[in-house]
Amino acid sequence: MTSTIPLPSVDARALGGALARLRESPPLVQCITNIVVAQWSANVLLASGAAPAMVDNPREAGPFAAAADAILINLGTPYRDTAEAMIAAVTTAAANATPWVLDPVAVGPLAWRTEIALTLLEIGSPAVIRGNASEILALGGGAGGKGVDSLETPEAALGVAQSLALRYGTVVAVSGAVDHITDGDRIVRVSNGHPVMTRVTGVGCALGALIAAFTGTVDDALLAATTATAMMTVAADTAAVSSSRPGSFAVALLDELSDLSPNSLTEKVHLS
Amino acid sequence: MTSTIPLPSVDARALGGALARLRESPPLVQCITNIVVAQWSANVLLASGAAPAMVDNPREAGPFAAAADAILINLGTPYRDTAEAMIAAVTTAAANATPWVLDPVAVGPLAWRTEIALTLLEIGSPAVIRGNASEILALGGGAGGKGVDSLETPEAALGVAQSLALRYGTVVAVSGAVDHITDGDRIVRVSNGHPVMTRVTGVGCALGALIAAFTGTVDDALLAATTATAMMTVAADTAAVSSSRPGSFAVALLDELSDLSPNSLTEKVHLS
Amino acid sequence: MTSTIPLPSVDARALGGALARLRESPPLVQCITNIVVAQWSANVLLASGAAPAMVDNPREAGPFAAAADAILINLGTPYRDTAEAMIAAVTTAAANATPWVLDPVAVGPLAWRTEIALTLLEIGSPAVIRGNASEILALGGGAGGKGVDSLETPEAALGVAQSLALRYGTVVAVSGAVDHITDGDRIVRVSNGHPVMTRVTGVGCALGALIAAFTGTVDDALLAATTATAMMTVAADTAAVSSSRPGSFAVALLDELSDLSPNSLTEKVHLS
Repeated sequence: MTSTIPLPSVDARALGGALARLRESPPLVQCITNIVVAQWSANVLLASGAAPAMVDNPREAGPFAAAADAILINLGTPYRDTAEAMIAAVTTAAANATPWVLDPVAVGPLAWRTEIALTLLEIGSPAVIRGNASEILALGGGAGGKGVDSLETPEAALGVAQSLALRYGTVVAVSGAVDHITDGDRIVRVSNGHPVMTRVTGVGCALGALIAAFTGTVDDALLAATTATAMMTVAADTAAVSSSRPGSFAVALLDELSDLSPNSLTEKVHLS
Repeated sequence: MTSTIPLPSVDARALGGALARLRESPPLVQCITNIVVAQWSANVLLASGAAPAMVDNPREAGPFAAAADAILINLGTPYRDTAEAMIAAVTTAAANATPWVLDPVAVGPLAWRTEIALTLLEIGSPAVIRGNASEILALGGGAGGKGVDSLETPEAALGVAQSLALRYGTVVAVSGAVDHITDGDRIVRVSNGHPVMTRVTGVGCALGALIAAFTGTVDDALLAATTATAMMTVAADTAAVSSSRPGSFAVALLDELSDLSPNSLTEKVHLS
Repeated sequence: MTSTIPLPSVDARALGGALARLRESPPLVQCITNIVVAQWSANVLLASGAAPAMVDNPREAGPFAAAADAILINLGTPYRDTAEAMIAAVTTAAANATPWVLDPVAVGPLAWRTEIALTLLEIGSPAVIRGNASEILALGGGAGGKGVDSLETPEAALGVAQSLALRYGTVVAVSGAVDHITDGDRIVRVSNGHPVMTRVTGVGCALGALIAAFTGTVDDALLAATTATAMMTVAADTAAVSSSRPGSFAVALLDELSDLSPNSLTEKVHLS
């Protein structure tokens, strides 16, 4: 008898394998991110086993990118200096085939960061674009959200996410209650996670940083994005057991990211 | 027999009502604030039930202000980019009658931010000015403090606070052991709170953000400033029961802001 | 019988005395630091008993430095504005003989911040230079590290640290498993601390801020650097007993810095 349920495009055991590799050889992740989440993102990377470096000025971002294993570009609070730094880092990344991740925070309704995102996408293709549904819809040509919260679901954005992935030759990770990750062809859904994640600032931004870390660890960007998403949401499930209140949950999330073993990741992730 | 004790200008039940409204319809609060407290302020807003958005660059701050329900301007670490952004956002706020809150951190002894504050006050009247006693005295023409800590008490600054409120048609909230809030005519005192609040950076700055959230929720700015002050200090009272050590207190404060119900707020606040 | 074990250059009782003085008269510490650790550094200073002030713009940093008891310059994320502010603050410090601390984050492989560090060192001598071994080696003319983590040990950097100390008339504090602190002549080793400190971002940066606080408290910069290092690592030892997981450890570290008494510091520090 043949099962009619398709297997997920990514095997849960591969996620554990990717995490084991990250821990064995911590990737150096250059983060050009926003003032709200810089500390939190660095702490998420350190707790998970990666090595963050926030080099985000115009004169050093390009040269430093040549030494980084992966780069995160997060558009949360761009300024003149950091916008220049983003362009410099992505230019280096494109020249060296270093993977980079674009987190297009609030792209769409905000004109300048939308220009920056499009400029970066012209310089080269990111390994992964991570955003909420509104951001992904906006980047795909839609209207976008209101502020930084999504008004749409990942399910509703999936078609646009697939088109975006094909257009830029990238993986698109749409965060939400059920995370949807696609390279245009393959689709992976991760259904771990807890609502309190939306009551702590920067969980999505830190996920972008963690995705970047895994793009510096494994070649398959779909696997990288899925592993990071699984890691964040499985750790959140465990953390929410100790507390679903936002202050203590955030502390517990760092603890659980640190404790999460490759085997636990494989066992606890809900892929479809 | 007639009571000779005057009733407070704001009824404790109105505070619970304001909190219930904020939770039902989370205001979008644009924060142009400082690098020290950006994450903390966003987490305080999220835990309390509001929706923060840190849009603080010159090209987007003005347009974004047109969509915000309220705006916070905090002068903690101004730079060229963010100072321009403040002016752009307040200009939009003035044109649209969107409420904005001024937190004049360290105004007085520091010349540039004092200029910025006065420029903003010329563009339009904030709904609320929140500061410690030294900052309020400095803004009212006095000598100001040393750094970010107040050398004066709210009681000593009350007369200047009332003058400021009348001059700019605003509400002035003077933070301290007993918070004093005035529109020039009415005066409300909130005597909740705990000394450990001064051992955690940005509790006052986050209160400014929370005041902004309530100005986006209720029309009466005196009620908005009082509700935010009551919420922060009542949550602090409860948090300090679990820990009065600064690290764990800060975590507990976020938890208690999240847990605080409108009824508890009304019951626990000490107004006079 | 004469003991052949040399006494440490700093007496453990002097550390407790320095901490008591800091608590009695909290130094005002101007911090020009990076966006990753600004909140954390302020919280470490507040928990320890000092008074932080993050005045880091070009127009106010110089005048404010005249009122500060000590200044921290941290090169983690320099921008045009903050680099100008650093020069202004150090110029004032040099004119007023106000102690300042240089934390040369990632100096060496990154060209611009290396230029900034050398420019600052030409303006005047810092009271203390604090870095990891790679940073100290780079500042002494070596090749430097990769990102912000050290590839070298303090033991290997000691000779260069001594030369640097003599060249600039300063104290050099090399952070690592065993912290080495030298004025070129005297050497103090502090062997407290726990590996989880490397899993929390900014522990080293916050140590730089705490060293600055103690340079504003005691005249002997070797004592200042040793006291701050002892305080951070003794508090870390105690915090790691409650949790060696990075999220809860960071919270406990602030609590323990706040609780640490002068007597406990003297008793628990391991000097050699």
